[in-house]
Amino acid sequence: MSLRTGQGYVVAVVGATGAVGAVLLDVLAERSFPVAELRPLASERSVGTTVGFRGAALRVELASAERFDGADLVFFAATGALSKELGPEVARRGGIAIDKSSTWRMDPRVPLVVPEVNPARVEDHDGIIACPNCTTIPLVMVLEPLRRRAGLKSVVVTTFQSVSGAGLPGLEELAAQQSARLAGEPLPPPQAFPTQIADNVIPVCETLLPDGYTSEEHKLLAESRKILELPALEVSMTCVRVPVPVGHSAAVLVETERPLAVAEAIEALRAFPGVEVFPDGAHPTPADVAGRDEVLVGRVRRDLHSDRLWLWEVGDNLRKGAATNAVQIAEELVRRGLVGVAREPAKVARHS
Amino acid sequence: MSLRTGQGYVVAVVGATGAVGAVLLDVLAERSFPVAELRPLASERSVGTTVGFRGAALRVELASAERFDGADLVFFAATGALSKELGPEVARRGGIAIDKSSTWRMDPRVPLVVPEVNPARVEDHDGIIACPNCTTIPLVMVLEPLRRRAGLKSVVVTTFQSVSGAGLPGLEELAAQQSARLAGEPLPPPQAFPTQIADNVIPVCETLLPDGYTSEEHKLLAESRKILELPALEVSMTCVRVPVPVGHSAAVLVETERPLAVAEAIEALRAFPGVEVFPDGAHPTPADVAGRDEVLVGRVRRDLHSDRLWLWEVGDNLRKGAATNAVQIAEELVRRGLVGVAREPAKVARHS
Repeated sequence: MSLRTGQGYVVAVVGATGAVGAVLLDVLAERSFPVAELRPLASERSVGTTVGFRGAALRVELASAERFDGADLVFFAATGALSKELGPEVARRGGIAIDKSSTWRMDPRVPLVVPEVNPARVEDHDGIIACPNCTTIPLVMVLEPLRRRAGLKSVVVTTFQSVSGAGLPGLEELAAQQSARLAGEPLPPPQAFPTQIADNVIPVCETLLPDGYTSEEHKLLAESRKILELPALEVSMTCVRVPVPVGHSAAVLVETERPLAVAEAIEALRAFPGVEVFPDGAHPTPADVAGRDEVLVGRVRRDLHSDRLWLWEVGDNLRKGAATNAVQIAEELVRRGLVGVAREPAKVARHS
Repeated sequence: MSLRTGQGYVVAVVGATGAVGAVLLDVLAERSFPVAELRPLASERSVGTTVGFRGAALRVELASAERFDGADLVFFAATGALSKELGPEVARRGGIAIDKSSTWRMDPRVPLVVPEVNPARVEDHDGIIACPNCTTIPLVMVLEPLRRRAGLKSVVVTTFQSVSGAGLPGLEELAAQQSARLAGEPLPPPQAFPTQIADNVIPVCETLLPDGYTSEEHKLLAESRKILELPALEVSMTCVRVPVPVGHSAAVLVETERPLAVAEAIEALRAFPGVEVFPDGAHPTPADVAGRDEVLVGRVRRDLHSDRLWLWEVGDNLRKGAATNAVQIAEELVRRGLVGVAREPAKVARHS
């Protein structure tokens, strides 16, 4: 079942019942995105359930190519496999897919966009625009203002990633293990994560690869370089899962090309849209950021031995790290008059 | 009440009812440390309670100078103020204070000892030997083998510190907040930590100082330099509290003086006493290390952009990070025939 509300665009959401999908529906409504018709879609398992949008309960339908007929915008917040299969179907029908999966991010034909950082990139797409990883987004949000002031050479990042980065299964696993621990019962076996996450931290997010790095860590490097258009940027990282429901944090050590005073860095960060710097002595935590769209920054200070700067950043991985960023991409497309516009046939074909 | 068990030394434990004190009694028993008489001591609040040692229940008495008469070894696992006041009283009476507080660590007259790293330092003391911070100990345990192979230039560390680093109040605060969350009740106000720790991470351990660093972070630098005897070693760090009961973790990026192959680094770490390297594809977590004395290491890999090495280390902050290290210091003193031996009067007076 779809919702028709008059003026606006035909919008579909693939993965409408997931952790990001649910927030995406909220964000579309909160920001009064001009939705004329909303089509909540999902895989077979969720068909027939309902989701809420602007007070209406909408029946979830199967995500399939036909459901994209007449759709202006299709948000993908599901598996990479589904994005890979169905993203080109959106493009072929003249719509624009805004994809939260990692499938298309590094494709040279696909722009990878954080609207505060590289908004103009939405102009040159072939029907698919990718939304970066929920860890990459807050990182580039704090790197870009520093880069504009002083250039960027290298970054050392250690992340503290919440369980909702692994979707609803991650949230459910943490809650189930916490309940078991408090009841003094044995923990249910881990499924979403490689080992116990309640009362623990796990120094592996996603898949450990033969080179000793995880897929998550490689994404952080490759996506940061693509978004910032700095192919030689050095990002060294360890990505760690922590028993936090929502909110990805990172301790970041930044080497700029020219030394940057702490006060100047804070000024640059404060002036950047979507970034909020906590005052001296305060420091943002995941509990502060959950439910907010801003990337929160604190503890900006000079390294004790070099001109590098340390900072601590926190972002809501479901909102700015996912849903909000995706909706902002849609808003940027609307602002530039790029939604509901016929594209050159050659471009439409390029993902096929 | 004290326990007399025949052959061995007269041992007192100040702070016997605390998180570290309780583990210290266990470790003394487990390691069959030659205790002839054990005197559990604490501040007024805990006097009259009992603690268990080798199956006996011992009444806790007030920590006061007179209780050190005839004591060979006095472990301090209480507040810094108590160590400051009473440490010299042990020295004056000819005993040796092994202090877990930060009070004496940076005093040039006081050795700061991790027995695997700098055991000979126990030789030159004036009646007080300091045990490093629970974050410093596992760090120097992994740095020392790398230093011996290739020298050390710089280290970037981000820590994941458990709540028991703040003692029993930290453990109780996490448990109380977790119970409240699961019951859907409002959280009890934070006391041990600056803000909510359940389901959260806090990028401040101990006290935030005017220079933007915390007291915990300054300890990590100063203590590492003193133990490793590398006064120019660069340690850059962010120390973060995580909702984990026991076990401090750290992501560490190490720059050696000469490039060190990953296989060589692993070999050096494996050969070092008290360090266990997890095999490829496995990675230690706090849940793995709780209750163990080894420092567990995993994810040893080369930085993607330099000759530096990343690794992940985890140590039980109550055991190797505190109690075990303190008992190992006592064992080292015994091994060298330095317990129950008269010291030069000049040395005894130096802390007075």
